[in-house]
Amino acid sequence: MSHVTLSVDQVRDLAARCLAGNGCDDANAAAVADTITRAEADGCASHGLFRLPGYVASLRSGKVNGAARPRVEAIAPAVLRVDGDGGYAPLAHERSREPIAAMARESGVAAVALVNTHHFAALWAEVEPLAEMGLVAMAMTAYKPAMAPFGAREPLFGTNPMAFGFPRGGGAPPMVFDQASAAMARGEVMIAARDGHDLPPGVGLDRDGKPSTDPNAVLEGVMLPFGGYKGSAIAMMVELLCAGLIGERFSFEAAQADNNDGGPPRGGEFILAMDPDRFGDASWHDHAETFFARYAALDGARLPGARRHAKRAKLARSGVRVPADLHDRIQALCAGPA
Amino acid sequence: MSHVTLSVDQVRDLAARCLAGNGCDDANAAAVADTITRAEADGCASHGLFRLPGYVASLRSGKVNGAARPRVEAIAPAVLRVDGDGGYAPLAHERSREPIAAMARESGVAAVALVNTHHFAALWAEVEPLAEMGLVAMAMTAYKPAMAPFGAREPLFGTNPMAFGFPRGGGAPPMVFDQASAAMARGEVMIAARDGHDLPPGVGLDRDGKPSTDPNAVLEGVMLPFGGYKGSAIAMMVELLCAGLIGERFSFEAAQADNNDGGPPRGGEFILAMDPDRFGDASWHDHAETFFARYAALDGARLPGARRHAKRAKLARSGVRVPADLHDRIQALCAGPA
Repeated sequence: MSHVTLSVDQVRDLAARCLAGNGCDDANAAAVADTITRAEADGCASHGLFRLPGYVASLRSGKVNGAARPRVEAIAPAVLRVDGDGGYAPLAHERSREPIAAMARESGVAAVALVNTHHFAALWAEVEPLAEMGLVAMAMTAYKPAMAPFGAREPLFGTNPMAFGFPRGGGAPPMVFDQASAAMARGEVMIAARDGHDLPPGVGLDRDGKPSTDPNAVLEGVMLPFGGYKGSAIAMMVELLCAGLIGERFSFEAAQADNNDGGPPRGGEFILAMDPDRFGDASWHDHAETFFARYAALDGARLPGARRHAKRAKLARSGVRVPADLHDRIQALCAGPA
Repeated sequence: MSHVTLSVDQVRDLAARCLAGNGCDDANAAAVADTITRAEADGCASHGLFRLPGYVASLRSGKVNGAARPRVEAIAPAVLRVDGDGGYAPLAHERSREPIAAMARESGVAAVALVNTHHFAALWAEVEPLAEMGLVAMAMTAYKPAMAPFGAREPLFGTNPMAFGFPRGGGAPPMVFDQASAAMARGEVMIAARDGHDLPPGVGLDRDGKPSTDPNAVLEGVMLPFGGYKGSAIAMMVELLCAGLIGERFSFEAAQADNNDGGPPRGGEFILAMDPDRFGDASWHDHAETFFARYAALDGARLPGARRHAKRAKLARSGVRVPADLHDRIQALCAGPA
């Protein structure tokens, strides 16, 4: 497969130009392009330029409002409601970041109900900036049904990712993890099918609802949550917080309402930000570092996010390799609908 | 094995008498006895009378303050600090429940830092009452190291349970799950060893740090988190919230400080309570019920907590079966230290 090498700035320009050519105003194009660029810059190609055709499809179909003006409102002393105005999540995140931090510093905690938005990005990119501001942060979002609850054979949960960030001392980047509730990403199952490898047990069921380690059978069947009934409970919690609590669509409702244009359905996101300076331990930073030091000293243990941060440093020098056919496709999309 | 059948009231009387005979004042004895009784009443024997000898040991060693007077203080508009005064967690929970609910109703969210306490109970018993008050609730606690982080071979995390509760409509008991971050409870590994069964892969390592499905080898080695690196991340999040954020001991610190008398070490608990009426969707109750209805309609899916609630109804009629040797041992402990 041939590749094109782009600098991080070139990724950003290409993404912004393509979005602007398909109905995004400048503010939305810049915010989405930044999210795409940060994914590419950290080596997360699956949330980078690869997503642009989906963004473009949902602009062209009219499902998503490319000129959205997100509104941020404190609806309780520690609850922020962010209405995405039918647009993509990145501008809503950009506009709500400072209000979230201010509320967390004032109240100790800020819970965010992000509604009326279309989410198509990685959650770490939303949690990391809050953790860089010194806050402990959690984020979750639901999607269209892809997984059966433990014990069942039909999809009800989205892949339902959850991210968590904790600030570090000494200039270290924050500890951030971001993980789907699925046992394995669908893309990994597709790669196993391509390469003729078996799956580990517990990844999915075939179309008759029987457990299978054959990737082709699982692709025709249904995925399962990670870790059996415990991961299933986490996936359910994500549904209840991102839909039940904040008043947005459950995964099954998102699927019913979506136009299947390849872009993200409408959905909600639940975010929690907490200011450790308001929790009563003035030495929390040093204390947490004793834990991180113990963790780092364990042979074989890898701190979540460490690999991503190492890639960031490398890719800033080397540039980002983009498959040539994707690059061609995006160039063609830049001209806008025919 | 011979058994004694006790009514739920008899369980409560026996537990309270045994605790009072070993240095608990009436308020603490009643609160701990209630926690033990609720576990027995729901068929959770492992958190019932089975724990009494451990409670008694920690009273006799002087590690735990049997006359603790928990103090509840709002240290930020949405943060409640509960100081357990060196006692057991149940009285601190009892005394903080109304203030937590009041803060969640006022601010939308209440984050609770429970410190200076000894936790030896099931988390569902703490989350369920908050959910019965109409709140969405989450709770986590750490313990002494029992699990290696994913990739490592030495213990750093406690079994680090996490519980979550969501209120139901129509008089149904709330949906509550409560799960350790370990792949399997240590007691289940012991039962597999006794019965000569292999473990599923991923439960633990032998003493050389090699993955093993031999329960005896894992009992000599170290347990692993559920679901590989994803459960490991959840276990780390529990450490960071219950120790790093709120200023209590990490699992490794709890082990260093504990006197190993068989009772619970000092530790912290992180609780989050949210009032869905403050999140902007007046019809959240009906909306959530559409999700629960979908879930219930899936063949093979079981709602977390449903089995426990069914047992509760059954045991209220039949009484609770207690192993005769445990019953004898508790009777002997009631007389207090020799």
